[in-house]
Amino acid sequence: MQIIPLGGLGEIGKNCTLIRLGGEVLVVDAGLMFPDEEMLGIDLVIPDFRSLADLGVLRGIALTHGHEDHIGALPYLLQRVQAPVYGTPLTLGLAGRRVEQTPGAPRMKGSPVQPRHPLRIGPFEVEFVHVNHSIPQSCAVVVRSPAGTVVCSGDFKFDHTPIDGAPTDFARLAEIGEAGVGVLLMDSTNVERPGYSPSERAVGDALDEIFARARGRILVTTFASNVHRIAQVFRAAEHHHRKVAVAGRSMVDTVTIASKLGVLRVPRRTLVPLEQLRRLHGAQVVILTSGSQGEPLSALTRMAAGTHRMVTIQPGDTVVLSASPIPGNEAMVNRTINQLYRQGADVIHGAEVHVSGHAYQEELKLMLTLLRPMFFLPVHGEYRHLVLNQQLATAVGVPKERTLLAENGLVVGVSPTHLDRAGTVEAGNVLVDGLGVGVGAVVLRDRQHLAQDGVLIALVAIDRQSGELLRQPDIVSRGFVYMRESGELIEEAKKRVRDAVTQSRERGVTEWGAVRAAIRETLGRYLFDQTHRHPMILPLLVEV
Amino acid sequence: MQIIPLGGLGEIGKNCTLIRLGGEVLVVDAGLMFPDEEMLGIDLVIPDFRSLADLGVLRGIALTHGHEDHIGALPYLLQRVQAPVYGTPLTLGLAGRRVEQTPGAPRMKGSPVQPRHPLRIGPFEVEFVHVNHSIPQSCAVVVRSPAGTVVCSGDFKFDHTPIDGAPTDFARLAEIGEAGVGVLLMDSTNVERPGYSPSERAVGDALDEIFARARGRILVTTFASNVHRIAQVFRAAEHHHRKVAVAGRSMVDTVTIASKLGVLRVPRRTLVPLEQLRRLHGAQVVILTSGSQGEPLSALTRMAAGTHRMVTIQPGDTVVLSASPIPGNEAMVNRTINQLYRQGADVIHGAEVHVSGHAYQEELKLMLTLLRPMFFLPVHGEYRHLVLNQQLATAVGVPKERTLLAENGLVVGVSPTHLDRAGTVEAGNVLVDGLGVGVGAVVLRDRQHLAQDGVLIALVAIDRQSGELLRQPDIVSRGFVYMRESGELIEEAKKRVRDAVTQSRERGVTEWGAVRAAIRETLGRYLFDQTHRHPMILPLLVEV
Repeated sequence: MQIIPLGGLGEIGKNCTLIRLGGEVLVVDAGLMFPDEEMLGIDLVIPDFRSLADLGVLRGIALTHGHEDHIGALPYLLQRVQAPVYGTPLTLGLAGRRVEQTPGAPRMKGSPVQPRHPLRIGPFEVEFVHVNHSIPQSCAVVVRSPAGTVVCSGDFKFDHTPIDGAPTDFARLAEIGEAGVGVLLMDSTNVERPGYSPSERAVGDALDEIFARARGRILVTTFASNVHRIAQVFRAAEHHHRKVAVAGRSMVDTVTIASKLGVLRVPRRTLVPLEQLRRLHGAQVVILTSGSQGEPLSALTRMAAGTHRMVTIQPGDTVVLSASPIPGNEAMVNRTINQLYRQGADVIHGAEVHVSGHAYQEELKLMLTLLRPMFFLPVHGEYRHLVLNQQLATAVGVPKERTLLAENGLVVGVSPTHLDRAGTVEAGNVLVDGLGVGVGAVVLRDRQHLAQDGVLIALVAIDRQSGELLRQPDIVSRGFVYMRESGELIEEAKKRVRDAVTQSRERGVTEWGAVRAAIRETLGRYLFDQTHRHPMILPLLVEV
Repeated sequence: MQIIPLGGLGEIGKNCTLIRLGGEVLVVDAGLMFPDEEMLGIDLVIPDFRSLADLGVLRGIALTHGHEDHIGALPYLLQRVQAPVYGTPLTLGLAGRRVEQTPGAPRMKGSPVQPRHPLRIGPFEVEFVHVNHSIPQSCAVVVRSPAGTVVCSGDFKFDHTPIDGAPTDFARLAEIGEAGVGVLLMDSTNVERPGYSPSERAVGDALDEIFARARGRILVTTFASNVHRIAQVFRAAEHHHRKVAVAGRSMVDTVTIASKLGVLRVPRRTLVPLEQLRRLHGAQVVILTSGSQGEPLSALTRMAAGTHRMVTIQPGDTVVLSASPIPGNEAMVNRTINQLYRQGADVIHGAEVHVSGHAYQEELKLMLTLLRPMFFLPVHGEYRHLVLNQQLATAVGVPKERTLLAENGLVVGVSPTHLDRAGTVEAGNVLVDGLGVGVGAVVLRDRQHLAQDGVLIALVAIDRQSGELLRQPDIVSRGFVYMRESGELIEEAKKRVRDAVTQSRERGVTEWGAVRAAIRETLGRYLFDQTHRHPMILPLLVEV
């Protein structure tokens, strides 16, 4: 048997894992990543699925839960290879919507699963086990085969007082541990945090206090997928006799889908349309809104900026940001908070009103103790998290030689007695940009160059017969210097272009590539002297 | 009297404050800001000093301490208006070097000051008062005039066990408070943190423990300006019989300048050249290196990447990052930490080995209690920090109507009985890019456009007489799609350009601007249909 972690931008085994036996393959999760700050103009990043077809017959795709970083690349995977998709109803619902919304993706064949009910997928017996996480119906995936049992923890935590009354399925995990686990692949996200993550219910208590104190309107934002959090907002509103209006498309979608699927209970007569808020006093109102990451077009961001069509922030409003900023979004979130303060709102954010959905150190140890795996593969984290998770596992009693720090694309060979490096497969990140899947390094490098110093085009018309300049060269630039204020610089640059062409000709150079190179060099040196910048220089020669 | 906060990117009154009496002006600090992620290609940002000349005669510039965000814009200020510069010797040393290194800046006339020794600057009596901060010789600035006393706290904290034995000058602050303070401008950076900031000595204790435990080499990085931290590294090294080698230009500079000025004591025979490390065992070695922010070209980043000329990271090394990432640098610091782990090092970072140089809530209250100002102006912070600092001041007993939330450029009128809004001055941020001071909005917008979707140039040669196309249009693109793989798209685009020109002609359009607009529109629509991207389209028409 082989295990191959795929995908993850700086993280390892985060978005997709392949399990292969003979010529048959099971995929666990197919998530996307968000571009980092150097990936200019890129919309999203997906794992490189090219090697999938070569590895054998894809028997199925098992999804642990419905977050974008676990389901978002599914449309692109299905474009390459078709296979049935397994998951809990909410997970399949979200995944299906993702596939439908992607132009050119085929239909998804979804098979809903029930935790504790194993099913056969190719040579594997696959069982989903309920775990707590920041979205309902999350599962660990247990894969049994003649070659042993593999457990993918997925994203999980242990919550003894979860909102839906269903803690992580200790009993089943313990049974599975008793029966014997070959390999455990475990989430490393919060391995740097000591102790236990607080229960989701802690946020409910905090909301209750805030609702009790607030005299004016209350606005709450959170991740649109955090159905438990949303349920707690409704509960607090009901308790304090406030109506809830929902703003923002993603938040409206969640409330609609989740209540249809029965994972969200909306108390009777609590929900009101946003349009009806005017008729209510501030003390009767809760606005549940999208925009927890300060996304530029989201409802909360527009409210904070004073450009939302229906809601204007006013002194006396209390705004609760019940979410932590995803790395990279800090500046946008800060901007939103500052704007809310400027409009006179009171803003509550931070650890008081948010808990993580990922296990802390003691929970990770608990999972290890329940499952007592023969081998341990830390995944879902940056390299340093993997190292620390490895150290944690050895502290719990897994011998270090039975652990392995994998990189994406590493083929991990599994036998009853060994875990070893058995080669690698292609596992880069594929950049998606508009409709283009697979934006290359050259395009990205050009964008970085253009972003830094702009572009300068030197247009040169040359007589076909004489090889002489037909006229003064023309210069067009964008993003370099402001043309209207740089007359002298541009005039001198035109002169340098003319000189470069004339001198090339005098030296007998007629090959266009060489003339272009001469223009680029002369002009580049002159512009750097004058401005200390290196714009991208594009010499265009027209022969007439 | 008037007080005008200037500068600060999202922050208020961070980098520069003007104090004006009649036609005479005193400037407190002249700092720079680092560009945010939307300011593509920008090297640094300075306050807009244009209004300075109109406000009156500049009598002097008082610098609170030597950090870039308080001295870095001095060369640009002196280019506009000349005036003597006042500060402690270390602050002047660093400011002078900044001015010398800036092309085109005039010589700085520096006047060293001694804390507790007031001096006259125009109509003001100015006194520097020693405070603790993460660079030696930091001061608050007290400005007395017939119109009352203004205190600028500068960046400060209260440290009862500072490394240089000199706590913030409580006694003098208390005397100044007793004598009566009109306005206090106070740092808001850490107003969200409850309690007291830990003493700098806490880091020394942590280093001592780490040095006692480590068996191999120890590498320590911190801000190059944090002389106290550097002193503690030397002390721990001496205590544990290790030699210290210094890597990275900024770190070498600090050790040289600070020991020359007597603010850093380097224990005898502790310092060794980097070249001599080979001769020593790992257990005898400390490498003090620049690169605490993961800066791409810094010494530590190169060591982590395996490209440093002299130092290769090896298993058994302990690397201490004794600094917190400045917002925006998190990703770079994370990348460095991951690479260090990959090379086999053990990495220690976070709160254990770093303390902040800015006062927490209880220290801010202490400053307020010592000075008991009539009026309070929160500064050095984002808007939300200012709001919270205002709330903190009212909790300590400053009536809310005697506080004011200023924005940059607000002219705050000060009288014995009132603090009020008395107009505004120009206070935007000026972007510096290479040698260009004042990069405009158009250039920046173009860079953002280019960064997102690249550029596409359509080159069209037209016969002057007939108005007909002389040849097939040519297309050049960069940063949009990879040209070599997009033959069909480009061919069809050429056809669309030709059609646009022909149709314009048939409709009798001959004005070039209109033809260009037609090309831009036709091509833009086609390319968006095909790619869902909006490259910058530049039609170039050549008439021959």
